[in-house]
Amino acid sequence: MTNNALPQAQLSDKHFQGNFFEDFELDDLIRHATPRTITEGDVSLYTALTGSRFVLYCATTVANACGFARTPVDNFLVFHIAFGKTVPDISLNAVANLGYAECQFESPCFVGDTLSVESKVIGLKENSNGKTGIVYVHSVAKNQHNDIVVSWKRWVMVRKKVASAPTGIDSLPNLASTVTITSQLIPQTLDFAQFDNASSGSNHRYHDYQVGEWINHVDGMTINPSDHSLATRLYQNNAKVHFDAYAMKSARHGQPLVYGGHIMSICRALSHNGLANGLWLAAINGGSHTAPSFAGDTIYCVSQIMDKGELPDRTDLGWIRVKTFGVKNLTLQQISDFIDDQTLWDEHKVLELDYTLLCPK
Amino acid sequence: MTNNALPQAQLSDKHFQGNFFEDFELDDLIRHATPRTITEGDVSLYTALTGSRFVLYCATTVANACGFARTPVDNFLVFHIAFGKTVPDISLNAVANLGYAECQFESPCFVGDTLSVESKVIGLKENSNGKTGIVYVHSVAKNQHNDIVVSWKRWVMVRKKVASAPTGIDSLPNLASTVTITSQLIPQTLDFAQFDNASSGSNHRYHDYQVGEWINHVDGMTINPSDHSLATRLYQNNAKVHFDAYAMKSARHGQPLVYGGHIMSICRALSHNGLANGLWLAAINGGSHTAPSFAGDTIYCVSQIMDKGELPDRTDLGWIRVKTFGVKNLTLQQISDFIDDQTLWDEHKVLELDYTLLCPK
Amino acid sequence: MTNNALPQAQLSDKHFQGNFFEDFELDDLIRHATPRTITEGDVSLYTALTGSRFVLYCATTVANACGFARTPVDNFLVFHIAFGKTVPDISLNAVANLGYAECQFESPCFVGDTLSVESKVIGLKENSNGKTGIVYVHSVAKNQHNDIVVSWKRWVMVRKKVASAPTGIDSLPNLASTVTITSQLIPQTLDFAQFDNASSGSNHRYHDYQVGEWINHVDGMTINPSDHSLATRLYQNNAKVHFDAYAMKSARHGQPLVYGGHIMSICRALSHNGLANGLWLAAINGGSHTAPSFAGDTIYCVSQIMDKGELPDRTDLGWIRVKTFGVKNLTLQQISDFIDDQTLWDEHKVLELDYTLLCPK
Repeated sequence: MTNNALPQAQLSDKHFQGNFFEDFELDDLIRHATPRTITEGDVSLYTALTGSRFVLYCATTVANACGFARTPVDNFLVFHIAFGKTVPDISLNAVANLGYAECQFESPCFVGDTLSVESKVIGLKENSNGKTGIVYVHSVAKNQHNDIVVSWKRWVMVRKKVASAPTGIDSLPNLASTVTITSQLIPQTLDFAQFDNASSGSNHRYHDYQVGEWINHVDGMTINPSDHSLATRLYQNNAKVHFDAYAMKSARHGQPLVYGGHIMSICRALSHNGLANGLWLAAINGGSHTAPSFAGDTIYCVSQIMDKGELPDRTDLGWIRVKTFGVKNLTLQQISDFIDDQTLWDEHKVLELDYTLLCPK
Repeated sequence: MTNNALPQAQLSDKHFQGNFFEDFELDDLIRHATPRTITEGDVSLYTALTGSRFVLYCATTVANACGFARTPVDNFLVFHIAFGKTVPDISLNAVANLGYAECQFESPCFVGDTLSVESKVIGLKENSNGKTGIVYVHSVAKNQHNDIVVSWKRWVMVRKKVASAPTGIDSLPNLASTVTITSQLIPQTLDFAQFDNASSGSNHRYHDYQVGEWINHVDGMTINPSDHSLATRLYQNNAKVHFDAYAMKSARHGQPLVYGGHIMSICRALSHNGLANGLWLAAINGGSHTAPSFAGDTIYCVSQIMDKGELPDRTDLGWIRVKTFGVKNLTLQQISDFIDDQTLWDEHKVLELDYTLLCPK
Repeated sequence: MTNNALPQAQLSDKHFQGNFFEDFELDDLIRHATPRTITEGDVSLYTALTGSRFVLYCATTVANACGFARTPVDNFLVFHIAFGKTVPDISLNAVANLGYAECQFESPCFVGDTLSVESKVIGLKENSNGKTGIVYVHSVAKNQHNDIVVSWKRWVMVRKKVASAPTGIDSLPNLASTVTITSQLIPQTLDFAQFDNASSGSNHRYHDYQVGEWINHVDGMTINPSDHSLATRLYQNNAKVHFDAYAMKSARHGQPLVYGGHIMSICRALSHNGLANGLWLAAINGGSHTAPSFAGDTIYCVSQIMDKGELPDRTDLGWIRVKTFGVKNLTLQQISDFIDDQTLWDEHKVLELDYTLLCPK
């Protein structure tokens, strides 16, 4: 065949265009492709992409002092990699990622562990326009020992292959508003009794946080074009809206969207300033991306302490439920003001993330 | 010396400006600098830079099931790192990278292996303008055990130091149009008998591909400025055209060129959608960069199955010869159309890559 | 709490806004947060961010031949990670990073080592405007065995919390203009007797460099937006001026500043072309960032050999003191000219770095 020969054969249908609403059935079990071994390279990239400084993930000496034989992998990184596995099957044709619930981290993940992910369809609701529907899935990521590392529920609005009069599909799952923190969500060897504030740079521990208290995390982070695309490719999340700037030119926002999980990680990294001892992510109770973000946006965040509690037989730690609000493109003065200003709030908020941290007492 | 003192001494000549056409002689053997140990960090960066999802390189569990004691390194990454070693000696003064041939992967590469690269000059042809010539080299990368990992031939147009009437140098090498797949190009322990389609997400195996069949890989990837420069620096490829935007402002295209190998890797990553079980790159039969790419371009690709074949005594796998065409900045409709449209084809094509994959039966 | 609920509680003061001039006292010892384990991922990212090709850090085989059981980590990377630890306590409110001195590398750093950093306040000088002062610190990074890896002095101009009539604080430390190279600054097992020029690609060794000689490193490197922010986040350096483009729009330069250390590393990487056998960084005698750099700038550099010397009982190596001048946005002709042109020099220079390299004899 010469360089300029024109092909005669027909195109095959071996490429996959993603699942549509009609392709999902209640109780379907979907085994996602591309199990993934997590490496030291992933961990360094996560630091380079977010600037995260939570010390349990940075230093073997600190991890050892907290009862881990090796440095655990940041659960946000674990979540993004596990989540990425579900995208080709669940959300390639998603109109919107509507929400998360009941995300719980059951076993710590270490460098060298291989994650495999499955999802079960737990709810389906057709929209009244007959063009889209909402798919609810329960996803579970296990390691090579078959231990559950992380599980979560999420729901996405997915296009129908063929618009039609609504067929009445309406089966909603039960979703808990928060994850109850039990000893199951505390890594077996974790022990904060020897934790040294000097390693995190913060003297604020469990007893110092009050329910209702607000923390302005002050710092900002601008998202450069390669930052978010590197992150999203690292997670092998292949949703087109994050990568194809040419196609996105003619879409609603005229440019690629930043993967919402990257915003979650930036906010988590920024929240170090005020929450440095919120060391272990035990659960994500809920999350929503209230507006899209784009390359060039600068992200800031504030957090409110929603709840806190202790566990029987644990004198070394307690849990703190935090709601972090990500906002973009505000001055420092506006960030202070916006908590009392509904307009600023509505126009600049990009993320609400409700999660539970384990914190040394 | 004070901060603003002006120097009195002359500049030394210790910097290297690259070889010119007159610097090469037939049968020269060039030992390239900077042997390189490949690490887990390189592997993660390759994922972050390309989004590649070929599962043999992603999960230790899958690599083990395919007969490897450890996860092999993607041969495209191996090629780029080995290729980068040859740039300072061969193509720093290249006008154009004209082509590749006979690239064959003889031993798998693992994290911790150190590659050393040598090239032999196998052909020289002066151009009739007296200003440039074509240099043909055969490059060989070996690991620390002196096993050949990959070898290839390539030819580049190189400037002459001094333009002159042509001297008649015209010695062309033999170049095979395809690499014959023998057992030598199959890693010793490789065995696809236990390969599970669920790990790759595709049910299409060796017998499902027909010679002549076209696959539209559908997805697109926009190249952000840091993406390609990070990749090219990772490969320690120091060709100026990729890095010096200030100097390139006054060059033909007014901006840095994307390293052609990055386009190869993006196309390979996109080809996962339709070729997910083309797991092992055994050979690159030929390749040419038919137009330059720049930051901001969005890359798509289509592939045609050129040939396929089986090997005696291998019931677990066969080989598939694929030609992948990289194109840029087309709508999805245009990508479907362009196969029959010579004009679109000519205006948007950036890459032709002819390569051979091992695929489970 | 609903999505749009407005908070009632007051903001807490748990976030940290950095230390001001009044917060420092002479002889204060500050233990910096976030000890950091260096990994293979960090090393690969450093290569991807700088393109560095100094072979001692690239190949286990070469490191072994030079007496190291494992590949050492590039001391520039070690410095940036150690330096990053000091930023939250020392320079978050810095107006300017004024200089470095007496930076000496005492023990080699290997993948897996954990660095912890402390600083002592060794000088304080209030400025006559009553608004700012200069803080001098001596910082020491130790590994998990309590060996000193690197120590340095630096001074920064820091804002006062409250402008006032000057209080007369004026205590200056002694600062040596160069670090004396003793056997203490040579890694115990280092031996260049078996070093092979072919591995670095350069035949220029200790005896080939003359005091006063200038080297034009020729090559240029453009800084893309994500390049410098990835580097600075990898080092966990959280100075706002590098990350918050929104806030920087209203600051003096209208955009984020590139971390000066990234310029140092780019110049070091470019200096390979002419100084490829300047393998081991023993000391940084002094450094100053003479102008800020921004995304989009293209960096070039020239170096002058300032001094050289031998050590008793070392037949394998000598030291070379080098001053490297980083410049930006010059044509190749201008770079050759600027050494004799005070105007070009003043307008384009961004870095002066005075350092000492160990070089095979």
